Amino acid sequence: MSLLLSPEAATARIRWLAEPSSAAWLEQALAHPMAVLIDHAHCERKAAGAAVQLMFRYLCEPGLGEVLSPLAREELEHFERVLALIKARGETLQPLKAPPYGASLAALVRRGEPQRMLDSFLVSGLIEARSHERMALLASHSPDAELRRLYGDLLASEARHFGVYWLLCEARWPRPLIMERLQELAQAEAAILRTLHPEPRMHS
Amino acid sequence: MSLLLSPEAATARIRWLAEPSSAAWLEQALAHPMAVLIDHAHCERKAAGAAVQLMFRYLCEPGLGEVLSPLAREELEHFERVLALIKARGETLQPLKAPPYGASLAALVRRGEPQRMLDSFLVSGLIEARSHERMALLASHSPDAELRRLYGDLLASEARHFGVYWLLCEARWPRPLIMERLQELAQAEAAILRTLHPEPRMHS
Repeated sequence: MSLLLSPEAATARIRWLAEPSSAAWLEQALAHPMAVLIDHAHCERKAAGAAVQLMFRYLCEPGLGEVLSPLAREELEHFERVLALIKARGETLQPLKAPPYGASLAALVRRGEPQRMLDSFLVSGLIEARSHERMALLASHSPDAELRRLYGDLLASEARHFGVYWLLCEARWPRPLIMERLQELAQAEAAILRTLHPEPRMHS
Repeated sequence: MSLLLSPEAATARIRWLAEPSSAAWLEQALAHPMAVLIDHAHCERKAAGAAVQLMFRYLCEPGLGEVLSPLAREELEHFERVLALIKARGETLQPLKAPPYGASLAALVRRGEPQRMLDSFLVSGLIEARSHERMALLASHSPDAELRRLYGDLLASEARHFGVYWLLCEARWPRPLIMERLQELAQAEAAILRTLHPEPRMHS
């Protein structure tokens, strides 16, 4: 039944994040807007890469390419938009050391199938949900009007993205099973972020 | 100077392929339209994956993400369009054993930089050029009007794609050096295809 809902509607009823971001993160991010912007370009690129990687791993899984391909396209479009703003501000897409966030979450993905697929969808959804929450914070609190507009514009599709991952789960597993694993992963995700990473990042 | 040209114009003057496709390939492809269509969906997916992979490998190379990201988006859009036609015809995206073509070309990419980057751009461009040539053959010779239209529609952007790879080379290396390596790789590419692979594929 949930498949009839739009990703937004399906997701509105799901609580992804176990804890909100800390005030310390927002303070750090607002103090280093260019570092966070460059890191955000890398996040969009990585999100596209992750979606394409899932399409490759589960090559012929019915209903997967149809939704992950448009999602990857949208992430790439965001990457291009963020990259254009970085360049317009006279900066370049420099390499940034990643915070432990992504690798710590990837380590929680179980190895055997179908657990690996479920965990991969949930981890991708959690990252999208956290990005969405933090972009919303930046969209309301940044003192820079152009950045407020950028993050505000990108927000809507990020919400659609975690909806996509939710629907991919619901098409394959019973809701209680998904919810149980989501709660475990969401607790772990919040625990990772409880210690603020010293370098300003989208997921520090 | 060439950077001022559109990819199409720049490419119109470059001869990528050393030899045309054989009549035997066309005959094989026309006799197995669904296998070739499914293989083509995989080719679009792989072309997007290759562009994203290059963006990841040369993370902060100036001027790369700006052109490879839109290229990857377009390949994904084609993937979705081909997938939709496969499904509309009651078939599914089944796994197909790849012909030796891609792996044989990848083996020709030199390991050290900057040769690796040059070879990667040229091999990607060659694959796009061959796809373009073969799609043009299918667009004119297929007895199926819907397939003729599909391949015809996808043709134009494929031509833009090898133009993109050409311009990425010309922005970095002198033309004689690029041409010399292209000729070597193009000879090798034609040699690989001289023996028709027994299974019908875009690059059999």
